[in-house]
Amino acid sequence: MTKAEMTAALLAAKKKKKLTWEALAAKVGMSPVWTTSACLGQNSAPADVAIKIAKALGLTADIAEALTEFPMKGDTKAVPTDPVLYRFHEINLVYGETIKALIAEKFGDGIMSAIDFSMHIDRVEDPKGDRVKITMCGKFLPYKTW
Amino acid sequence: MTKAEMTAALLAAKKKKKLTWEALAAKVGMSPVWTTSACLGQNSAPADVAIKIAKALGLTADIAEALTEFPMKGDTKAVPTDPVLYRFHEINLVYGETIKALIAEKFGDGIMSAIDFSMHIDRVEDPKGDRVKITMCGKFLPYKTW
Amino acid sequence: MTKAEMTAALLAAKKKKKLTWEALAAKVGMSPVWTTSACLGQNSAPADVAIKIAKALGLTADIAEALTEFPMKGDTKAVPTDPVLYRFHEINLVYGETIKALIAEKFGDGIMSAIDFSMHIDRVEDPKGDRVKITMCGKFLPYKTW
Amino acid sequence: MTKAEMTAALLAAKKKKKLTWEALAAKVGMSPVWTTSACLGQNSAPADVAIKIAKALGLTADIAEALTEFPMKGDTKAVPTDPVLYRFHEINLVYGETIKALIAEKFGDGIMSAIDFSMHIDRVEDPKGDRVKITMCGKFLPYKTW
Amino acid sequence: MTKAEMTAALLAAKKKKKLTWEALAAKVGMSPVWTTSACLGQNSAPADVAIKIAKALGLTADIAEALTEFPMKGDTKAVPTDPVLYRFHEINLVYGETIKALIAEKFGDGIMSAIDFSMHIDRVEDPKGDRVKITMCGKFLPYKTW
Amino acid sequence: MTKAEMTAALLAAKKKKKLTWEALAAKVGMSPVWTTSACLGQNSAPADVAIKIAKALGLTADIAEALTEFPMKGDTKAVPTDPVLYRFHEINLVYGETIKALIAEKFGDGIMSAIDFSMHIDRVEDPKGDRVKITMCGKFLPYKTW
Amino acid sequence: MTKAEMTAALLAAKKKKKLTWEALAAKVGMSPVWTTSACLGQNSAPADVAIKIAKALGLTADIAEALTEFPMKGDTKAVPTDPVLYRFHEINLVYGETIKALIAEKFGDGIMSAIDFSMHIDRVEDPKGDRVKITMCGKFLPYKTW
Amino acid sequence: MTKAEMTAALLAAKKKKKLTWEALAAKVGMSPVWTTSACLGQNSAPADVAIKIAKALGLTADIAEALTEFPMKGDTKAVPTDPVLYRFHEINLVYGETIKALIAEKFGDGIMSAIDFSMHIDRVEDPKGDRVKITMCGKFLPYKTW
Amino acid sequence: MTKAEMTAALLAAKKKKKLTWEALAAKVGMSPVWTTSACLGQNSAPADVAIKIAKALGLTADIAEALTEFPMKGDTKAVPTDPVLYRFHEINLVYGETIKALIAEKFGDGIMSAIDFSMHIDRVEDPKGDRVKITMCGKFLPYKTW
Amino acid sequence: MTKAEMTAALLAAKKKKKLTWEALAAKVGMSPVWTTSACLGQNSAPADVAIKIAKALGLTADIAEALTEFPMKGDTKAVPTDPVLYRFHEINLVYGETIKALIAEKFGDGIMSAIDFSMHIDRVEDPKGDRVKITMCGKFLPYKTW
Repeated sequence: MTKAEMTAALLAAKKKKKLTWEALAAKVGMSPVWTTSACLGQNSAPADVAIKIAKALGLTADIAEALTEFPMKGDTKAVPTDPVLYRFHEINLVYGETIKALIAEKFGDGIMSAIDFSMHIDRVEDPKGDRVKITMCGKFLPYKTW
Repeated sequence: MTKAEMTAALLAAKKKKKLTWEALAAKVGMSPVWTTSACLGQNSAPADVAIKIAKALGLTADIAEALTEFPMKGDTKAVPTDPVLYRFHEINLVYGETIKALIAEKFGDGIMSAIDFSMHIDRVEDPKGDRVKITMCGKFLPYKTW
Repeated sequence: MTKAEMTAALLAAKKKKKLTWEALAAKVGMSPVWTTSACLGQNSAPADVAIKIAKALGLTADIAEALTEFPMKGDTKAVPTDPVLYRFHEINLVYGETIKALIAEKFGDGIMSAIDFSMHIDRVEDPKGDRVKITMCGKFLPYKTW
Repeated sequence: MTKAEMTAALLAAKKKKKLTWEALAAKVGMSPVWTTSACLGQNSAPADVAIKIAKALGLTADIAEALTEFPMKGDTKAVPTDPVLYRFHEINLVYGETIKALIAEKFGDGIMSAIDFSMHIDRVEDPKGDRVKITMCGKFLPYKTW
Repeated sequence: MTKAEMTAALLAAKKKKKLTWEALAAKVGMSPVWTTSACLGQNSAPADVAIKIAKALGLTADIAEALTEFPMKGDTKAVPTDPVLYRFHEINLVYGETIKALIAEKFGDGIMSAIDFSMHIDRVEDPKGDRVKITMCGKFLPYKTW
Repeated sequence: MTKAEMTAALLAAKKKKKLTWEALAAKVGMSPVWTTSACLGQNSAPADVAIKIAKALGLTADIAEALTEFPMKGDTKAVPTDPVLYRFHEINLVYGETIKALIAEKFGDGIMSAIDFSMHIDRVEDPKGDRVKITMCGKFLPYKTW
Repeated sequence: MTKAEMTAALLAAKKKKKLTWEALAAKVGMSPVWTTSACLGQNSAPADVAIKIAKALGLTADIAEALTEFPMKGDTKAVPTDPVLYRFHEINLVYGETIKALIAEKFGDGIMSAIDFSMHIDRVEDPKGDRVKITMCGKFLPYKTW
Repeated sequence: MTKAEMTAALLAAKKKKKLTWEALAAKVGMSPVWTTSACLGQNSAPADVAIKIAKALGLTADIAEALTEFPMKGDTKAVPTDPVLYRFHEINLVYGETIKALIAEKFGDGIMSAIDFSMHIDRVEDPKGDRVKITMCGKFLPYKTW
Repeated sequence: MTKAEMTAALLAAKKKKKLTWEALAAKVGMSPVWTTSACLGQNSAPADVAIKIAKALGLTADIAEALTEFPMKGDTKAVPTDPVLYRFHEINLVYGETIKALIAEKFGDGIMSAIDFSMHIDRVEDPKGDRVKITMCGKFLPYKTW
Repeated sequence: MTKAEMTAALLAAKKKKKLTWEALAAKVGMSPVWTTSACLGQNSAPADVAIKIAKALGLTADIAEALTEFPMKGDTKAVPTDPVLYRFHEINLVYGETIKALIAEKFGDGIMSAIDFSMHIDRVEDPKGDRVKITMCGKFLPYKTW
């Protein structure tokens, strides 16, 4: 079973069960972002979590096993065309050097890890229109000298 | 005066004054991310803030005027090669569809604005190694039907 | 059902019914541009409109449901090769900076939203040859400072 | 004198004179979009208009002559990175096929000319936030058969 | 029926009938270049010509109908790899600016239309080796000022 | 002297002398297309013709010598953005396979040479608007078998 | 039958018959390079040679006919990734200007034809390790002046 | 001194001395292809050969030293636009897989080295037009197993 | 049988047998890196090793034969998106010139062969987190002069 | 002072002093790879090491300061053309998936860090030709779940 077949099965079951990503995540005790990324085939799930996801959606053990496999990541376009995805690309184009300058100032020469990393998405109520809040948190890794 | 000349003058003055971005931002009453992006030429400053920035760095009125000009934005490479910048590109490649799915679930069909938008960068202490925390907050814009 | 399958079914029914996009739009009380874009899979339809579109074309509920799904947008080539599409790409190449300069002059630093946005296409009679008139109208979004 | 040198001289004079594009256009009896595009080096001006533009800005005859030269057009990036320009690229990605379908329906097989073409940009007041209105009008050119 | 299926059917029938493009064009009263381009799916045919083409090749009405549909044009690679096609790309690379300079000199600022356009291909006998003669003829369109 | 410096000198002299390309070509006994391409640095001139071009424009021997040098050809963009140049790119996208099919039918498997090649550009008067006529004539080269 | 289907059939028959390209070429009286290129679908074969190839491999007349068809050439990647193919790309990157300089010196301004062209590949014994010898021979084509 | 400055000096001296590449190569006892490539900055010369080249052209020791430096190679475009260079690119597109198949047949799995490699260019007289003969000879390197 | 089909069969058998790449390599007496690359279709196996691999996995002779075929190599993206693969791309971007400088210093002008080449991957225990150790060893090939 | 100016000064001083990278590295107590990368502007040096490097080369304090600045990394081409650099790109194309498979097997789902990373380059004597040995060692980073 490929990751694409796994994702198709998971989406179909989630739709049938009328479960949100948030509700599914709550059932398996993980965050909504990570749970969604694992179901979309961009992260591998630990065996016990994989079994919980499959069970929560009434799916068989082969789906759980597919969830544990290590995916080849990053299939979307380098420059995305969908407006939702593009806005994040644009943020990098406009604020990339700013982020680099401020990480350098606060931490020294190094990067924010995208591996030892977590993300959360929240809805912030606002009378002028609710806002999307994205929080990313990654370990600072200093460049090694040797 | 081009934005590039303006940025060169601002960086030289900031170095001479031994000011951090954070300290400069505090002096002018704006956030560090926005202040840095304006000084790097990716945002235009309101006239009063531009004057405060120039004064804080001991620079002349033409720098303040250059800060108020509306820039052509987004000069970095579409796929960045610097490791700090690339990690954010990678986050979009790996988590882009996840973000879209969760915005859709929480808000309906629409995007997070990258214009009515703010960002903050913080240092989170952690015994296993301090972490970079990036918080983005943009207005949700629903697709219009007509 | 994928958006591509949905579009194929809608086009076949529209051809069989000999309906124009304009007539279909009138039946469902929406504009021709938006109606066409939803049927071509580039916009999602509110549930009630989706049902009206399906009914107008004698199609079943699963088509209506497919119309309500949120699409991944923007599948055409970055530089289009079809002459109709290319002319609009060319207009951006030639007039892009002009548009930016005039929006700046009239509104300040900011953009025209492509989300809170509508478009109409009209035929203008002209003795030297009729003309295509495209009207775009999008909310001005000023860049936020923070 | 290159078109780039000409544009630099025109922008400097316009700034010094504190003229808007709109005011400059009114002085020379042309539309703001066309006037701006000629000054930015993307259109050539008829000799009499070129002289009026140079005069309105207090510039010499060589600027007028440079305005009459036929430019090599379209220097911006194929996929623009500036948010103002990108939104128009996005409109083409999302609505390109829709525009083609509706021109076909209203006119038959052919294109909207980008040469026998005009454009206007207006501000539409709106209590929920003013809107940018772009009107394009190009001659319909049917594909020839032979 | 897609244009690709239509072309496959037309080529098979043409081969079976041992008709050349030139003979087919003569039978339907159109030029060989236009007839070939319509059969290869790059131009739409008027209904009466479409019927003649289908008849000449002993094909059914659905082929005629497919010939009348308006195609999405320009599927070959931007930089072609086939030597026949590449040579024309090379001619543009080497002579493009020359063509622009001479059209400017003879007509003023404007373009040769590729829509109100015709092309013919002829064999010119030559004792040193016969030559291919391509004649393109397109309406001059002056850039509009407004 | 580089070809770019040579072209700049030739264009300045041509402007000063108020010579057209056509008149210059007539003076040196060559066609306008070839003469223009040599002056724009895309073809090398035989020594005697080079001297005639330099003389006709009142230029020195080093310009003549520069005209005889063999250029590195093809500096324009692979996908041109100027509308005049783009239309020829579009013709290749739309009619490339048609041209290949008709050369094959008339000559067998082979190409039209772009080296043993000539081109002429003419103005064809037409009451509905004058037309640009481009005539290309290249030797047919059959693919060798061995 | 497509060229790809033809090649698949030819390769399967060649494997079954345990014929080398060299032996097949000898049987049909052509060179190994040309024979291989025709079987791989990059050259068309004269009818008599096509029949010989089909017979030598015990294949039917439709394979012979497919061999005579004129292919769309050049399907490999512009920058190849296979190490064998890449080395030839690298030779062009490193020695391209050298080749141009030496052809210019020996022949004047012109090119080596890749159409009126032949190639041979030989094994040269060498005690330090055998060597691959590639010999290309193409007609010199001088640039035409007109 | 950069390689580009070195090449400019070498070309100027060669022109002044009216030396061909072939004559220069003979004077220094190396092949014309290698000598040209070293002078064009794509190969480094052994110290003694570098001195001979500088002397043959009446140049100083710093040119000899620049000739011995190890260059960053391969500056031409990935897909060349000059017709001379492009024909070799086309040969790889059309004959690449053929070359791979024949090297495999003659030598086993491996490549022709582009480093332990030599090339010669000759003029072959032919009554139908002289021909360019390019001979490449590189060591066969079998893929290692371990 | 294509290499892709072969790899699918090998991966399925390896999973069923619960064999690691390391264990499989030990069984056939080859290194893990080479064995994995051959099974993933990027290297050809000698006949005896191919038979051992097939036997170790309980597969038939056609798999062994497929393993001996010479592959078209290098199918992954030029700029990989998977984080594991990208880090090695990044190492080349950041350290490429350093590696060139140090090979030049230690060996003279030449390259490290990627053909006469081996690689090993080891786990290095480290109290601060275990480390991946990659060892590459390729023959130095000096640039030939001739 | 830019990093490029710094590197130029460092290379000139190193040449004048006839120091190898290895000797320079030994003098400052760091590894040759890291020292070279810092001098080439791809890594920042700690202040004390920067001072040692400047002193070892007889350079002033502003060079030391430039060495401590945090660079924008990765300026070489995405697909390098120099043969030394390309071979490492090719290794990634051919062995990338193999490396991923073996890291996965030895460590689980995660990457080798290119930041907490070191590299060494050695010469391995071999009677059949000395070999380049590259050793990379990076911390394994497991993908976080949250």
